[in-house]
Amino acid sequence: MQVTILGGGGFLGRRLAARLAADAAVGGQRITGLTLFDLHQPAPLEAPFPVRCLAGDVADASVLAQAIPPGTGLVVHLAAVVSAAAEADYDLGIRVNIAGTQALIDVCRKLVSDDRRAEGPEGLNRPPGQRPPRVVFTSSVASFDGGQAAMVPDEARQLPTNSYGAQKAIGELLLADATRRGFLDVVSIRLPTVMVRPGRPNRAASSFVSAVLREPLLGLPAQYPVAEDFRVWVCSPRRAVDWLAHAAGMDTAKLGRDRGINPPGLSASIAEMLAALEEVAGPQARALARHVPDAEVEAIVAGWPAAFAATRAPGLGFVRSEPLTEILRAFIADDLEATRRDREAG
Amino acid sequence: MQVTILGGGGFLGRRLAARLAADAAVGGQRITGLTLFDLHQPAPLEAPFPVRCLAGDVADASVLAQAIPPGTGLVVHLAAVVSAAAEADYDLGIRVNIAGTQALIDVCRKLVSDDRRAEGPEGLNRPPGQRPPRVVFTSSVASFDGGQAAMVPDEARQLPTNSYGAQKAIGELLLADATRRGFLDVVSIRLPTVMVRPGRPNRAASSFVSAVLREPLLGLPAQYPVAEDFRVWVCSPRRAVDWLAHAAGMDTAKLGRDRGINPPGLSASIAEMLAALEEVAGPQARALARHVPDAEVEAIVAGWPAAFAATRAPGLGFVRSEPLTEILRAFIADDLEATRRDREAG
Repeated sequence: MQVTILGGGGFLGRRLAARLAADAAVGGQRITGLTLFDLHQPAPLEAPFPVRCLAGDVADASVLAQAIPPGTGLVVHLAAVVSAAAEADYDLGIRVNIAGTQALIDVCRKLVSDDRRAEGPEGLNRPPGQRPPRVVFTSSVASFDGGQAAMVPDEARQLPTNSYGAQKAIGELLLADATRRGFLDVVSIRLPTVMVRPGRPNRAASSFVSAVLREPLLGLPAQYPVAEDFRVWVCSPRRAVDWLAHAAGMDTAKLGRDRGINPPGLSASIAEMLAALEEVAGPQARALARHVPDAEVEAIVAGWPAAFAATRAPGLGFVRSEPLTEILRAFIADDLEATRRDREAG
Repeated sequence: MQVTILGGGGFLGRRLAARLAADAAVGGQRITGLTLFDLHQPAPLEAPFPVRCLAGDVADASVLAQAIPPGTGLVVHLAAVVSAAAEADYDLGIRVNIAGTQALIDVCRKLVSDDRRAEGPEGLNRPPGQRPPRVVFTSSVASFDGGQAAMVPDEARQLPTNSYGAQKAIGELLLADATRRGFLDVVSIRLPTVMVRPGRPNRAASSFVSAVLREPLLGLPAQYPVAEDFRVWVCSPRRAVDWLAHAAGMDTAKLGRDRGINPPGLSASIAEMLAALEEVAGPQARALARHVPDAEVEAIVAGWPAAFAATRAPGLGFVRSEPLTEILRAFIADDLEATRRDREAG
């Protein structure tokens, strides 16, 4: 099976690619080739199958068609303009987050022959290799509202409080309808805020969630823009990759028409994160983090729901989040040294 | 105030235009001009203000900008590819129902100065004439699922069972986010199936709902593709126009972020409709309608919810549906003769 990762040069795309290289298979099918596609050309990857690295604009259907060749059985769609950037540049968010997703649908649809398309959802029951391509789409908790008071049930409506969340909810609707029509076979994962991210702060409004733990672990000061009782729905990079890989291979017949998954993340307050930091790295690390209010960031994240019921996903095989201290220890094991080296290199 | 009706040559657009001509005002503001825009040039309309009739493609932003001149305070967006047509031609539905709505947003946004846009939703509190344009968007019950068992609450999620419904739900999300950003000020009305429509059957899957009453009133045979206990959520053309006019002038501060209105229509079974037909027009009219199953139409309408709670809308000033017999008598008073003449003319 041919696999393509859109956003394959990014943080999660890179880790998922490494996971696929290690597994060499998805859902019991051997991977015969992988395309990593991103705005900037992704770095080469060692794998037991050929890996192509392509640069291009996800909203350009002719470029995208090269990234998703005939025979593609799986596309993981991670390419997105993130929250604060989509809020700052409306047109860019619309183009990448909506037109990019529509372009993906149009490419997948052309991969499926007219005969097979006419089968509609029935085509999803065909044997592997004859099915419409599986698409794993990263949606977001930002597509829901409710804020700090929320305990979002699986059947909650999406009433987004920001453009990024609206564009993700729209992507889910487009892909679910394309699935119903037999163009593709989507699983949409509403990812929690992923932490601890390595690297530097980025334009995601949630950037502080990682920074408040990562920077002190590097011995550096960190700021958090919200109060200590502020709760965030989070998951580790390891779990995010577990969920994406599971969605790539799972039996979608169990999903029915509802293709949106709220995975079993963790509701964590800033205070709980700082307590875990102190437990793992000592009081001197904890002391490096302090509260500096930022109204602009707070305005965006205040609308994001603090907790989800996530009752459906475990029964579908999505594993639960680790506790905070385990997430921190995994960051130390997986990323701390590389992050430190990057910083020292400038 | 300048007013534009997109889809102004259609059934509802025409009636709304006549209502605006009679009222000469919307929400206490005098109408200074009306533009009727449609794919084919709308017929002239007599009114106490200038009326322009323009033809064009709603998805073409440069054409749309001519239809929505500076100073426009209200746009009623009725232009759409209807249910069976959007199911038959995926690209056409995407272009008109999604790209057309995005083009409307882009035009409205350019009407609002940068200074005023920066106010975001605060701008909606400005005095009339300085606010972002009100947009009344006709969404649809087809954006919900649940079928015959449904009693859809106001806070239900939209999990559409057809492309038309998906595209309408996407339009709502786009317009709600544009409202939050201060580009415009939307009220989205999820219209029930409007009956009794004059004219001939069209490509809406719900076409039979009007035909089963209209054709016998004309003395002609009619077929219904679903069983007699099949329920549909309906409203009269008069009520649909009442709701659109109310949405055009209402105080949107009461809506908060939730801009979707489930108006108080009527859940009617085919049997109840036929009983009303018999009460109004006699048993010989009732005898003209018979059941001829149509699997294709049934597959689309089976997903549409049969009833809505509609608890929020009456408190916001949306008047309730009339009973079925009153709807039939209104059709006889408003439309029967004109429909008969049209048929005789060929």
